[in-house]
Amino acid sequence: MTTTENHHTPNILKIGQMSHTKRKRTCTGWKVEASDIARNTFNPIRSIVDGMKLSPNPAKEMIALSIGDPTVFGNLSVPEEAEVALIKALKQRKYNGYGPSTGYEQARAAVAEYSSTSKSNVNAKDVILTSGCSGALDLCITCLANPGQNILIPRPGFSIYKTLAESIGVHARHYNLQPEKSWEVDLPHLESLIDDDTAAIIVNSPSNPCGSVYSKEHLLDILKIADRNKVPIIADEIYEHFVFSGSEYHPMASLTDSVPILSVSGLTKRFLVPGWRLGWIVINDRNNIFQDEVRHGLQCLSQKILGPNTLIQAAIPDILKNTPRSFYSDTLEFIESNAKLCHETISKIPGLKPVMPQGAMYMMIGIDMAHFPEYLNDVQFTEALVSEQSVFCLPAKCFEYPNYFRVVLTVPQAKLVEACQRITEFCSTHYRTDSEIPDCRYIRNEAYDESWIE
Amino acid sequence: MTTTENHHTPNILKIGQMSHTKRKRTCTGWKVEASDIARNTFNPIRSIVDGMKLSPNPAKEMIALSIGDPTVFGNLSVPEEAEVALIKALKQRKYNGYGPSTGYEQARAAVAEYSSTSKSNVNAKDVILTSGCSGALDLCITCLANPGQNILIPRPGFSIYKTLAESIGVHARHYNLQPEKSWEVDLPHLESLIDDDTAAIIVNSPSNPCGSVYSKEHLLDILKIADRNKVPIIADEIYEHFVFSGSEYHPMASLTDSVPILSVSGLTKRFLVPGWRLGWIVINDRNNIFQDEVRHGLQCLSQKILGPNTLIQAAIPDILKNTPRSFYSDTLEFIESNAKLCHETISKIPGLKPVMPQGAMYMMIGIDMAHFPEYLNDVQFTEALVSEQSVFCLPAKCFEYPNYFRVVLTVPQAKLVEACQRITEFCSTHYRTDSEIPDCRYIRNEAYDESWIE
Repeated sequence: MTTTENHHTPNILKIGQMSHTKRKRTCTGWKVEASDIARNTFNPIRSIVDGMKLSPNPAKEMIALSIGDPTVFGNLSVPEEAEVALIKALKQRKYNGYGPSTGYEQARAAVAEYSSTSKSNVNAKDVILTSGCSGALDLCITCLANPGQNILIPRPGFSIYKTLAESIGVHARHYNLQPEKSWEVDLPHLESLIDDDTAAIIVNSPSNPCGSVYSKEHLLDILKIADRNKVPIIADEIYEHFVFSGSEYHPMASLTDSVPILSVSGLTKRFLVPGWRLGWIVINDRNNIFQDEVRHGLQCLSQKILGPNTLIQAAIPDILKNTPRSFYSDTLEFIESNAKLCHETISKIPGLKPVMPQGAMYMMIGIDMAHFPEYLNDVQFTEALVSEQSVFCLPAKCFEYPNYFRVVLTVPQAKLVEACQRITEFCSTHYRTDSEIPDCRYIRNEAYDESWIE
Repeated sequence: MTTTENHHTPNILKIGQMSHTKRKRTCTGWKVEASDIARNTFNPIRSIVDGMKLSPNPAKEMIALSIGDPTVFGNLSVPEEAEVALIKALKQRKYNGYGPSTGYEQARAAVAEYSSTSKSNVNAKDVILTSGCSGALDLCITCLANPGQNILIPRPGFSIYKTLAESIGVHARHYNLQPEKSWEVDLPHLESLIDDDTAAIIVNSPSNPCGSVYSKEHLLDILKIADRNKVPIIADEIYEHFVFSGSEYHPMASLTDSVPILSVSGLTKRFLVPGWRLGWIVINDRNNIFQDEVRHGLQCLSQKILGPNTLIQAAIPDILKNTPRSFYSDTLEFIESNAKLCHETISKIPGLKPVMPQGAMYMMIGIDMAHFPEYLNDVQFTEALVSEQSVFCLPAKCFEYPNYFRVVLTVPQAKLVEACQRITEFCSTHYRTDSEIPDCRYIRNEAYDESWIE
């Protein structure tokens, strides 16, 4: 037993015990500061949005196309089967106590079955249930990377990767996605960022904010880079199966025999219950490259907050088994139809370039800033869109990308139609033709102002 | 806006950006290790229990007095009002989406009302909802202490304080509690541990594992030390109101005008729903010593996992308002009666010294090891108790304390009676009188072996 313990005793403690020098407290008054971790935990979206001048036009009802929460308009709702499963779990009165910190065995087994493919077969021991998918990402990043190391994340990409990494002193390096190639990864750029301190590559397909769904071939190309450089992958697959007609979803883990992958997902998006905070990590590691160490590390980290809500855990097997396929297909049909509608309308607007998504619930729309000389960037553009038309879209600065904005496609169709009309009106008011653009402005906008994106 | 951002941009990032030296990856094969944080996240209970030889006597049914989960035996169950409130929240279909990361306003307002006293009045803005009380402790420790700093925690004490602190490189220093004074704090010892690097004192009353409930006077003495040394307090009050007849519960924040206090609690214990993972932090800071910085820090940290389950959040106002007083008093009467019964029986056993608790759901029992010369310590003693009598109690080594064990008082009375009988039988078999004790053994046990506690 003593051996086990010594093995686990943190180094930090040992150091602390050795140096018993104690500086006596010098009291001059209260001074309580926040820690570095607290100061470094920074949500760019919050900060950017809080910094924006958002004064809707009082004559027009506000339409928020900004919120990545499919439940917010009430048109998309939790499957009845999930409600039934939750009430059943509650009524059984067996699931109010502490569960294992990694989650109930039967819930993990159900997730394993749900996540397995013929090539990537996992079981309960490979699954860790977490408090939402952000909790899953937090555990993965924290377990794989030390302060001073780096992880590679997509640009444009979901802001939480950077928030979680930098919170603990891990650098976030952005690899470029290419709008002209449906947001595929710039592979040479990705590989150029890898160095000895690279702890993981985060791949997000289907993607927020891009709505891109990577082909098998493209995912294989990414895996080749990971394999060649021996970098594990964190596959953010929270939008798994969330793909439109013509596209196919490939779990990354189903495409490799060699690269170890932590796949993260949850009930959040597909089951339309982000508030339920039920995420998971699936450890895909056929060659035992993560070894016991990473597995054990994830388990230890899960003990800090002791897992997600047990009632939801207890309901998982029923939710995954009983939710009818029509529930998923109805949701997807609705979003795809919105995507087409939005893309069609916005494509006709001079100065805007929508990129048609293949899945998830978002569309990115490029702004040809040179033709909107009143605005310096996407933030000013979207601010003005609120002031004049009461339509709020997130500027892509929130995703570390310049001169795009993101539209959420889960809003009721009538609202989306109205919003697209207002965007059309806004652009027709502010669009300037080539001959109307002041020269200096045109030049300034052609230059890709890297310093600004940060 | 740029100003806001620069203000928040983590230092770490800036350093990373300045030094663009990149070491090219040298690939010799896969080598993926767990991070320091993962390695330093260490749950001593798990490790001690996993290291124990636990082979119950097959002739006797196992009775586990080890699990601090009041729901585990089925005799104590969630209030019906909480079930009704949860189903109501679910049926409304308005609480499946993301909530604010600090929690719904109405849930925070309800917690504020529930936690306010005439002297410590708080409102919604002072409350942060978290994923369980361990999530609350995690946020508080992480927000107040930097790596290399220290926090003061009770010995014996709940292991999670140390787990959370050392996970992020914060030292845990133990201040002594005194069994002969109903586990009151050794005040001079507490104060002697404070130095310039002390970021917080954690006070846990009512206490796990001791069941102690500190008097107003004793809490005032602790507050004086905090005030004199300008150290904020994290008051772990998860067992708030959980006190037996004759004792009174005093929230620490109700006793001070000057010391800033982060009080943590949750639905867990009083409402018998540990699995629901609903905890909270109440910021008590009348003189604005925490300033915006600590408040803001806690908010930022809450964004990492985006708050607890929203259905439970939505149910909180009803749960706090509708649960009848009889629910609390029934639970307490039951536990107090168990405490008396257990104390009475164990007091009669030569070689054991139970300390009567004043609240919570635990009792600590001292072992006069000199009189049980077959066993070196509490771990061996409790191991043997399992092998012979199929009764499992946690050795106090789990709480960094030697030669005690902890009994959980929430088990059905018949089981407790049976367990006490078996403990009596076990002790009568193994107890040795003074004349039977080998000399060397007696001396060895008199010495307080500090090295062993670790």
